Amino acid sequence: MGARFVRLDTERAFELARGVVGRPLFGEGAMLNLIRFEPGATVPLHSHPHEQLGIVLEGMQALVVDGVQHELGPMEAYVLPGGIEHSAYCGPDGALVLDVFTPVREDYQARWEAETP
Amino acid sequence: MGARFVRLDTERAFELARGVVGRPLFGEGAMLNLIRFEPGATVPLHSHPHEQLGIVLEGMQALVVDGVQHELGPMEAYVLPGGIEHSAYCGPDGALVLDVFTPVREDYQARWEAETP
Repeated sequence: MGARFVRLDTERAFELARGVVGRPLFGEGAMLNLIRFEPGATVPLHSHPHEQLGIVLEGMQALVVDGVQHELGPMEAYVLPGGIEHSAYCGPDGALVLDVFTPVREDYQARWEAETP
Repeated sequence: MGARFVRLDTERAFELARGVVGRPLFGEGAMLNLIRFEPGATVPLHSHPHEQLGIVLEGMQALVVDGVQHELGPMEAYVLPGGIEHSAYCGPDGALVLDVFTPVREDYQARWEAETP
């Protein structure tokens, strides 16, 4: 597969949790996921073997790890090693976040491809 | 290593090319690099075995692949498979870009750690 270019914020979205949608771009070894939190939306405690990195672009996203709330504003970034339990919530204005997973989340890719018209 | 949180736009910068600096966050299997292009700055033709994904956050970044100029504005994203030759330039206002590499760029990590005070 060659180079690919997409406008990510107008890609088809898929739901990650109530009020939380992702717009993904899948590479071979990693993926981007542009995530929009509606105000008040939350992501329940979960874990995955994939390493997760990311950066907040707009608003506030809090990541809760080991019971500690890390409230992150624009340009604040993170690394979550694979297997770490975490949950998330956002501020009153919601949030726009870019997540990165390595390896690719096969569960997301399967859902994305299944939903492709 | 556990979860880590950093304010990426005020991290120490390292030079990628004249007028182009990066602020990195290294994970285990992937890394983020927040790149600021000064107006008129360019990155010469190069390649690396690492897969590169990224997204433009501000301004315009053009990626040139196989002689084709892909001019990308905010929220436009890309995947460049490893080994693809590419160069870059920016628009008159420069650009802010988030790059992702998998695996980690060991050359960047070695430089970064060598420069750490």
